[in-house]
Amino acid sequence: MNNKVDIETGLRLINRKDENFEEWYSEVVASAELIEHYDISGLYILRPSAVEIWETLQAFFNPEIKKMNVESCYFPMFVLECHLKKEKAHYDGFKPEVAWVTKSGQSDLETHLAVRLSSEAIIYPYYSKWIRGHRDLPLKLNQWCNAVRWVVGDPIPLIRSREFLWQEGHSAFASEEEADAEALEILELYRRIYEEYLAVPVIKGTKSVGDTCGGAIFTNAVEAFIPNIGRGIQGAATHCLGQKFAEKFEINFEDKKVEKTMVWQNSWGFSTRTIGVMVMVHGDDKGLVLPPKVASTQVIVIPVPYKNVDCEGINDACKAAVKMLREEKIRAELDSRDNYSLERKYSEWEMKGVPLMVEIGLKGLGNKQVCVVRRDNGAKIDIANADLVEEIKKLLNNVQQNMLDVAKQKRDECIQVIHTWDEFVEALNQRKMILGPWCDEKVVELDVKQWTENEMGAAKILCSPFDQPELPEGTKCFASGKPAKKWSYWGRSY
Amino acid sequence: MNNKVDIETGLRLINRKDENFEEWYSEVVASAELIEHYDISGLYILRPSAVEIWETLQAFFNPEIKKMNVESCYFPMFVLECHLKKEKAHYDGFKPEVAWVTKSGQSDLETHLAVRLSSEAIIYPYYSKWIRGHRDLPLKLNQWCNAVRWVVGDPIPLIRSREFLWQEGHSAFASEEEADAEALEILELYRRIYEEYLAVPVIKGTKSVGDTCGGAIFTNAVEAFIPNIGRGIQGAATHCLGQKFAEKFEINFEDKKVEKTMVWQNSWGFSTRTIGVMVMVHGDDKGLVLPPKVASTQVIVIPVPYKNVDCEGINDACKAAVKMLREEKIRAELDSRDNYSLERKYSEWEMKGVPLMVEIGLKGLGNKQVCVVRRDNGAKIDIANADLVEEIKKLLNNVQQNMLDVAKQKRDECIQVIHTWDEFVEALNQRKMILGPWCDEKVVELDVKQWTENEMGAAKILCSPFDQPELPEGTKCFASGKPAKKWSYWGRSY
Repeated sequence: MNNKVDIETGLRLINRKDENFEEWYSEVVASAELIEHYDISGLYILRPSAVEIWETLQAFFNPEIKKMNVESCYFPMFVLECHLKKEKAHYDGFKPEVAWVTKSGQSDLETHLAVRLSSEAIIYPYYSKWIRGHRDLPLKLNQWCNAVRWVVGDPIPLIRSREFLWQEGHSAFASEEEADAEALEILELYRRIYEEYLAVPVIKGTKSVGDTCGGAIFTNAVEAFIPNIGRGIQGAATHCLGQKFAEKFEINFEDKKVEKTMVWQNSWGFSTRTIGVMVMVHGDDKGLVLPPKVASTQVIVIPVPYKNVDCEGINDACKAAVKMLREEKIRAELDSRDNYSLERKYSEWEMKGVPLMVEIGLKGLGNKQVCVVRRDNGAKIDIANADLVEEIKKLLNNVQQNMLDVAKQKRDECIQVIHTWDEFVEALNQRKMILGPWCDEKVVELDVKQWTENEMGAAKILCSPFDQPELPEGTKCFASGKPAKKWSYWGRSY
Repeated sequence: MNNKVDIETGLRLINRKDENFEEWYSEVVASAELIEHYDISGLYILRPSAVEIWETLQAFFNPEIKKMNVESCYFPMFVLECHLKKEKAHYDGFKPEVAWVTKSGQSDLETHLAVRLSSEAIIYPYYSKWIRGHRDLPLKLNQWCNAVRWVVGDPIPLIRSREFLWQEGHSAFASEEEADAEALEILELYRRIYEEYLAVPVIKGTKSVGDTCGGAIFTNAVEAFIPNIGRGIQGAATHCLGQKFAEKFEINFEDKKVEKTMVWQNSWGFSTRTIGVMVMVHGDDKGLVLPPKVASTQVIVIPVPYKNVDCEGINDACKAAVKMLREEKIRAELDSRDNYSLERKYSEWEMKGVPLMVEIGLKGLGNKQVCVVRRDNGAKIDIANADLVEEIKKLLNNVQQNMLDVAKQKRDECIQVIHTWDEFVEALNQRKMILGPWCDEKVVELDVKQWTENEMGAAKILCSPFDQPELPEGTKCFASGKPAKKWSYWGRSY
């Protein structure tokens, strides 16, 4: 194989996942044609392979939230500054990242318009209008849209881009209990997106005060971890807003005793970042590795021609295989291009992460079998033609499960339980996801950040897991020596 | 019934469709809760009943274009002025309506960014990059997104708003024939959206030069007509761009003879305007009338209680009916609210346009039957419980078909064939959709516009229909007296 040609045609990666992770990531998302760089910094084109994954996640999530009686809506993407300012912590968090429209055509606008960063300040004035009595509750709306955050730091395709696609759900309840229950139900859907669809293991937990969304009481999240660089990454979040916004936006209702009461609110969202996390966890030095459930092409069928032999029989067998698979709703494609070498085709489909490659050649034709290559572990399996559909179905399930299992094993190997500061520092140097007993004081997290700051960034709390190990009485915080109140995951983060 | 209370609670319309159409329209879209006015002029909130119609149209259209091998993508919504300017006619058309982002946070941006109006100038630089050889063609991409046109004239909810949702398809072909064939195939899908889903009859045709999208060779459209005010409205369009953009954006490929050739392009889109057209055609003085295929609630089941009688049996029968209907995938809901009068419930569901109302009372309970009221024509039908599901299914189909038939009949009654200027003027005064022989000269259309301009606007060409009546030799243009070249529809327009 001619490596030089492959690199030039984008079929081989220059960078290695374990050597220079960030360059590897940038290279793989572009070479696998998930994204294309755009000529405005921090913006990226989402190409069909990325958008089709997004559509698969939408097709799962939208019906699930409709079962919960969440309705679809669409609010304008521009907001007046006066509304954006109403909840101060919310505004302070977003202020540096606002994109402002100040002109239309040749004219200056009378009032500057902020482009949607998140729609609390856009939506809640109308919740105030629409909610009157307890029969108007709960009010649960969701929209699929773009959002813009003009981040100042280094943008990363899919992970931290200045425009992204997401869903944002906004709900208002009569009671705190209902709000809290919904937040957990949504978080479970986010877990399923990661674990069942993207084959990425996540930990459910509560973010620290420093990472709580501006204006929220607390933020719950599903947290993923990237072993190769030892960084946590927030996968998706539900924000329990309590009555903070209700107070500022005057969202009240008359309860059954005809007393004016403020509503309890949540907001929750997941974005195209999900796709970036999937790439980081599963990609390898050959390119993307796609879990079958989200792969727009699950099986690529490739004819293996022989010199000086009429290939019609091989091509017919390939076509027949594709047809059979498609009839069973397996997303199979035929690569019949005769101007590319076999090696080039292999490299291309490996780069794009197609879960299964089916090769049909002269030998297989004689033996009435095909050769299947798994993208996830490289295993080659011969399958009798008669069993093709059944075996491919099994293999797709197996690949999906194996990808989650392997990712979970790798993630779990990174988890290090510590009790002391020395253990913490050692684990951090080893890029672990560190589980330590913690006094739950904001100032101590700030101290830890300061003490660990270096060119790779500082350590922080990733989350305090819902699933808490036992905390024997007398356990001390690893950082402050004060009595520990809970276990938290620590590490560097995106 | 207490009219005053109904008007105050938004359950009765103040305006009449035949008396003051525009006020009626504004009132009905808000009262039926399709939209809510927003505090920035020209922007509207799309409420669940509107977005759910949009989702239904998406669920039809997206799989259809995927069968045509159109792939999904998402391009950034900001574009540099230098790209926007490249195709002059395109830029000139959009220039007055551009929303400009000039600041991020507190800082001025180095370059001003235009918010997406339509994505030709955003997408085609990348077509130039991605298209190299004939094997890269056709390239067919579609995105579902928002777009912003800061229109200066009066905004109309859903019909002409400053932000709207749409799909925009962009395709590039090796030959003009392939491009033209695709444009017709897409136009047929647009016809089906209007006729099969929204029950709105449309005419396929070519727009006049004056209404051709800036940068296109010609624009084909599906044209609807609103009898009550005698105005045409463009429903959706395909733009045949020829090689104009290919030249400006340098989109070339090496054809099979290895010669550099420019691609042939189309762009095509339909927007949330579809929903506004549906309201204008079908709405009445009681509110919205929804075609069953797009109604998120197709059947509302209402218990009819009797004074001093235990209503448990009635309520149970209602619940059982909803359950049965839902099991057969009919979108049925129960209105069990006990704090609203029957009259109020009727008004509310009429306002929201729910196709069928099923009433279950004591009498029906005894006779084992229910009473069904059709929203489209007010007919009341008794149905035996045993036949409920079958009969409701039939009725839903019947309502869908009847709405299209009635709308087509009303539209057809507005079509007036004319041959002379006097006939034209008379027909225009009668608010007709005027079919006349036409010399196909741009300057004559401008003359007609000038001659007919009054406070209601000027007459213009709505479209030249694909389906051309016979044009006997010697037929003269109704406006210029020159030899006629084709038949065109004329009238006032949105």
